[in-house]
Amino acid sequence: MNTIHREQLVNQLHWRYATKRFDPQRKISAEDWAVLEEALVLTPSSFGLQPWKVIVVTDPAVKEKLVPVSWGQRQPADCSHLVVFAIKMNLGEAEIDAFLKRTAEVRNVPLESLGEYRDMMVGSLVKGMDDATRKAWVERQVYIAVGNFLTSAALLGIDACPMEGIEPGKYNEILGLDKLGLSAIVVAAAGYRAAGDKYATLKKVRFPKEQVILHI
Amino acid sequence: MNTIHREQLVNQLHWRYATKRFDPQRKISAEDWAVLEEALVLTPSSFGLQPWKVIVVTDPAVKEKLVPVSWGQRQPADCSHLVVFAIKMNLGEAEIDAFLKRTAEVRNVPLESLGEYRDMMVGSLVKGMDDATRKAWVERQVYIAVGNFLTSAALLGIDACPMEGIEPGKYNEILGLDKLGLSAIVVAAAGYRAAGDKYATLKKVRFPKEQVILHI
Repeated sequence: MNTIHREQLVNQLHWRYATKRFDPQRKISAEDWAVLEEALVLTPSSFGLQPWKVIVVTDPAVKEKLVPVSWGQRQPADCSHLVVFAIKMNLGEAEIDAFLKRTAEVRNVPLESLGEYRDMMVGSLVKGMDDATRKAWVERQVYIAVGNFLTSAALLGIDACPMEGIEPGKYNEILGLDKLGLSAIVVAAAGYRAAGDKYATLKKVRFPKEQVILHI
Repeated sequence: MNTIHREQLVNQLHWRYATKRFDPQRKISAEDWAVLEEALVLTPSSFGLQPWKVIVVTDPAVKEKLVPVSWGQRQPADCSHLVVFAIKMNLGEAEIDAFLKRTAEVRNVPLESLGEYRDMMVGSLVKGMDDATRKAWVERQVYIAVGNFLTSAALLGIDACPMEGIEPGKYNEILGLDKLGLSAIVVAAAGYRAAGDKYATLKKVRFPKEQVILHI
């Protein structure tokens, strides 16, 4: 156990904001980035299935190409690391089996011992859902990773901007995701705020706690 | 700035797991819980719209009632605080206007100055989406809150179990959510692991980092 202080969580969640202007000169250190990648890998998901991949874009030319397909917003180019959250398309028995193989490997148990778990996942995800429902389920899972990433970055003092305003089809094309069976869903630009970003000092808007949280 | 150490993030994300058995005797302190509620309120969302509410259930009788509508799992009853993430049904202009009113209030700006922002949100969410697409969008937003909550709890040393295995309709009935225009989507039981939870010591299964994260 290596817990943090309550004030750290509150302070850093107040400190973060959807950064509009990044300082293009400031890069996230290799040490910090390695930890954020580990945090991404450790993101929880339903069944533990991790139905996503994450593409980290740091190539300046590619980042620049993503600006016009991000509603012209500069964050993809000016940030330090652009994180593209992509779903595995056509999630099915092959992905479930890959996950079970990994489980058997990590936990050193025979694959056959996981048969019941396999049946449950296949029943729920493959047989129990049509394609559109399954895709929506996978997309929701990805947003757990987004939430985890934004909080993790804030706690390390790293700025981020989650962005839904992208053209996924164009992202897939530019990043070559189609041929990997992936599709971009949402991105988070990460780095450091520019000194003059006026959004940094705007008061954070949230509904009052008593309107957000009900007690029973 | 009140950042944490890199090792704290990694250690606590390794420490957490989907807790199967909670110690029913151990309750989260009022101080810790207040901070987790604040973290929930501070969750980011697209446009800042916060299209959700969170129902915190601590009444033992109600928690017990939720067990049979949670596939018989005991976590809702045995945990300290059960967090039910619910979406606002029929998100539309009224919710956008409530958010803009709040923005004007918090930032002390005239409501009229937010007209362009209103047009953008109405264009994107109300006119630009059919009901099913909008509901799916709202549901994805809620999962940001789930990701934030799980990471926040882990960092404070509080156990949690995210659960999709619930009957939302029954949750809505038991918690009276329908009449509030809400619908339960996913829950997270929070508290402390029971000493004998065998899942606590199982090795965490994740795909190797190089399979999860691609670099461009």
